[in-house]
Amino acid sequence: MTTPRRLTLSFSCPDRVGIVAAVSNVIARESGWILESSNHAHEGTNRFFMRVEMLADSLTCGVDRFRESFAAIATEFGMDWKISDSSQKKRVVLLVSKQEHCLYDLLGRWQSKELDIEIPCVISNHETFRGLVEWHGIPFHCVPVTPDNKTEAFREMARLYDAVDGEVMVLARYMQVLTPEICARYHGQVINIHHSFLPSFIGAKPYHQAYDKGVKLIGATCHYVTEELDQGQIIEQDVIRVDHSDLVGDLVRYGKDIEKAVLARGLRAHLEDRVLVHGNKTVVFK
Amino acid sequence: MTTPRRLTLSFSCPDRVGIVAAVSNVIARESGWILESSNHAHEGTNRFFMRVEMLADSLTCGVDRFRESFAAIATEFGMDWKISDSSQKKRVVLLVSKQEHCLYDLLGRWQSKELDIEIPCVISNHETFRGLVEWHGIPFHCVPVTPDNKTEAFREMARLYDAVDGEVMVLARYMQVLTPEICARYHGQVINIHHSFLPSFIGAKPYHQAYDKGVKLIGATCHYVTEELDQGQIIEQDVIRVDHSDLVGDLVRYGKDIEKAVLARGLRAHLEDRVLVHGNKTVVFK
Amino acid sequence: MTTPRRLTLSFSCPDRVGIVAAVSNVIARESGWILESSNHAHEGTNRFFMRVEMLADSLTCGVDRFRESFAAIATEFGMDWKISDSSQKKRVVLLVSKQEHCLYDLLGRWQSKELDIEIPCVISNHETFRGLVEWHGIPFHCVPVTPDNKTEAFREMARLYDAVDGEVMVLARYMQVLTPEICARYHGQVINIHHSFLPSFIGAKPYHQAYDKGVKLIGATCHYVTEELDQGQIIEQDVIRVDHSDLVGDLVRYGKDIEKAVLARGLRAHLEDRVLVHGNKTVVFK
Amino acid sequence: MTTPRRLTLSFSCPDRVGIVAAVSNVIARESGWILESSNHAHEGTNRFFMRVEMLADSLTCGVDRFRESFAAIATEFGMDWKISDSSQKKRVVLLVSKQEHCLYDLLGRWQSKELDIEIPCVISNHETFRGLVEWHGIPFHCVPVTPDNKTEAFREMARLYDAVDGEVMVLARYMQVLTPEICARYHGQVINIHHSFLPSFIGAKPYHQAYDKGVKLIGATCHYVTEELDQGQIIEQDVIRVDHSDLVGDLVRYGKDIEKAVLARGLRAHLEDRVLVHGNKTVVFK
Repeated sequence: MTTPRRLTLSFSCPDRVGIVAAVSNVIARESGWILESSNHAHEGTNRFFMRVEMLADSLTCGVDRFRESFAAIATEFGMDWKISDSSQKKRVVLLVSKQEHCLYDLLGRWQSKELDIEIPCVISNHETFRGLVEWHGIPFHCVPVTPDNKTEAFREMARLYDAVDGEVMVLARYMQVLTPEICARYHGQVINIHHSFLPSFIGAKPYHQAYDKGVKLIGATCHYVTEELDQGQIIEQDVIRVDHSDLVGDLVRYGKDIEKAVLARGLRAHLEDRVLVHGNKTVVFK
Repeated sequence: MTTPRRLTLSFSCPDRVGIVAAVSNVIARESGWILESSNHAHEGTNRFFMRVEMLADSLTCGVDRFRESFAAIATEFGMDWKISDSSQKKRVVLLVSKQEHCLYDLLGRWQSKELDIEIPCVISNHETFRGLVEWHGIPFHCVPVTPDNKTEAFREMARLYDAVDGEVMVLARYMQVLTPEICARYHGQVINIHHSFLPSFIGAKPYHQAYDKGVKLIGATCHYVTEELDQGQIIEQDVIRVDHSDLVGDLVRYGKDIEKAVLARGLRAHLEDRVLVHGNKTVVFK
Repeated sequence: MTTPRRLTLSFSCPDRVGIVAAVSNVIARESGWILESSNHAHEGTNRFFMRVEMLADSLTCGVDRFRESFAAIATEFGMDWKISDSSQKKRVVLLVSKQEHCLYDLLGRWQSKELDIEIPCVISNHETFRGLVEWHGIPFHCVPVTPDNKTEAFREMARLYDAVDGEVMVLARYMQVLTPEICARYHGQVINIHHSFLPSFIGAKPYHQAYDKGVKLIGATCHYVTEELDQGQIIEQDVIRVDHSDLVGDLVRYGKDIEKAVLARGLRAHLEDRVLVHGNKTVVFK
Repeated sequence: MTTPRRLTLSFSCPDRVGIVAAVSNVIARESGWILESSNHAHEGTNRFFMRVEMLADSLTCGVDRFRESFAAIATEFGMDWKISDSSQKKRVVLLVSKQEHCLYDLLGRWQSKELDIEIPCVISNHETFRGLVEWHGIPFHCVPVTPDNKTEAFREMARLYDAVDGEVMVLARYMQVLTPEICARYHGQVINIHHSFLPSFIGAKPYHQAYDKGVKLIGATCHYVTEELDQGQIIEQDVIRVDHSDLVGDLVRYGKDIEKAVLARGLRAHLEDRVLVHGNKTVVFK
């Protein structure tokens, strides 16, 4: 089954009467067929968020004209907005280290077209997965990172990312902390999977911390990377039950299953423009 | 904290271009402030579902005029619609037997105003909970049901329900199968909690069936009551993990926790007009 | 169905070869019929934990003689041990404030004998639930707590608890921090339900903290009370999914359902001697 | 970290006084160090189940002598028993069709040694995954199955399985129903992942069935294959939440995540001798 071409409009703006009416009028005027529409009014900050998915071919005016029409009301309402076109696959660069689970999981989803993206390259600080990645026909770059070369190494990665016009950078259990320079430069484009249920167990060795604390559930958190470690906006989380008989190694093993599931869900939401950042939090439309 | 008066509009109609625009225009024209808005277009049947929650006091025209204005577009689009007013509490009649968990749970939510409803009476086929119910200041009617008096007993219950202008009938682990007459008469008003994860284990003794099958999760299902036993539209479900060491009595005990949680969530969704029936299924807006 | 009288042996001791053999020999020698048996060897601290549930009437020697026989091997292996007798119901004192959910939940379980305990009294710092508690035939004591009378108030509560030979004190959403004196005196007897997924959101207003952080799941934690606030050994935890559309009031409401379920499960595990404390953690035998 | 060599004893037998004592005595006599021990007495059938994991090197008598010693009490108690040795990796043959998720998942776990098994070959009715499997250094056999050649095709698969001394056959979303001959011949060795929460939605297209029914959770079931379709003993199950907005394609996509997680957990339990079959059900020791 092929999915028809879709346009996804997403925006936020100060809340006021008439936003939905204005947006739906501009769509209806061009006979736009709405597949999904979600919105959220945030009481505290009085900000309004909306996402509309339309059949591209239903628009009588064509896509470019629609963008122009929409730009007018976007200005009127002070919107922070974008329109994505499903016919243009997003370019997602994966960063990995030596752990396999998120990489295998994402490659499997890409191979089966469940994730309908381009992976222009995979970057790693180790050679471990060169063969697997290249077997999939995806270029693999090894950029070792040491305490001494960290700034240069990340600049090299940025160069590789820019060279393929990367749009999303996924830290698929990449075990190096990004430099502030990179965090700032690719703000809102870098997605990490952290191996704890944040805000518990920030930083290194969260499974050891969870084990020492004796928690009865462990979790994982998919979040945007910001300059403050493990403090970026949370996109998705999940947990799994553990008990006293589970050693740290068991927690690591259970955690891998949660990590890959949470990363895949969070990444998919981001790719479908379902995630709108709102200060230190996110709106994630189902 | 007091919640401001709200109007909740919910409807379904054949899908076509312009529904959201028409609805949001009629709201915006009267300066209606939208608190929540959800919609769903069902591809297979080409039917459109929508729910909008508004601040009642934001409408410049008043509530009655708004209903009139809306009726015009409702007719135009062939809508099945209603508008609920939060200032009119819904009248919910509980039917119980000898099991306590759902009754205690609902009374607790009512006592704390978490469920902002009227409970004009509780009806039971046993005297077990008369004291508890009456202590809460709620009238209690015992209507015994035997194989011989079933039709008359249910007519008596219908009479009691009608006498208090009942709007919702909740079978809170009420252990008698309703007569077809009652099912037909109160179509869409009767909510049951079934003690299995339907469609598994339809009918009697589902926990025994689950035990015999050796399933690793057991569940509960909140659904509308229709004339076909345990086949009504599903509103909400949940499950809990069990293992080989759990006897039927343990399943019953775990199940009680799921039953009361699922019933409370399903009932709340119904009371807030979040549930729209669609053939043998439901749309349940979060 | 009536449950036959059971003896529950639970202990921990330094791990070594032969513990299970010694314990099972002393049971087999007296023809003890084992219903359930669980054990756990903790690698890090080399400590061994075990729980055995037996049919009391299967012991050819009688219960008192069995205790004596067991005491000999308990000494040999340096065990920290106890034997509970199901024919002696545990006396559980509930402390509540103004929130109803845990109280209704526990009273319902007690009323139906799901929790086969005595509740010799309920203590509260408010009069809110006097009527409900007394209707159940349970004495209710109101002990107001103010900044000025805190020490005396808790001494009065201790007096009430001692007067009924309390064995377990349950803080069923009791909204006062216990004095260090009380924490020390009833060490291992006081069970609290904290309204967050600890160690996240320690202290006051955890749902506000969770809302501000934008987590995608909220939780509750049942733990023993120790002198350090919210740092006692965790017995049970659970979580529920939330999203951007949920306000603090919604989190509070969802949280109530998790709180009462987690408290009930944790309390039951404690009552059945399934919880063995191990430093700052617990072993909880299923 | 390397795991020390372990012996895993598992058995079931008629329940009676003294089983644990006899078993633990024979272990203690040879100074066997117990790492984990679990047991279960089934009331209805009066059958007893036990699993003990020991450090192989702790046995003063060596592994072979221990087997002999144990055989004596096994005979005495009428045990159905076995002892597995972690130094002998189990040989697991995977059967796949065109869906990638379970295969990628299991290969990833094998590559990282999370699953410490041998995969002597992968068999498929399609060529789809030859490259991926062979890249991992694992032989790949394509055995097409048509209505005409079904019996011969499965005999060929049996030949391939026998040729590598297969011990476990995993249907990792293998889309052909096994012949009764194969089911009977490899009884207790064949593990399937079914894409529904059994016993709901037996047979073909369970996600379509689930969609038509409007359930609010979908699931997957890992079970042994027996001659009756989808009726084998259940090893593990799990579910995921869905709603009205999810189309069949969405259910399939969510389902994949549950399927691979449930299959991996069920397979691991089987490989560690945690699963003991008991009539049409299983005992699964955590």
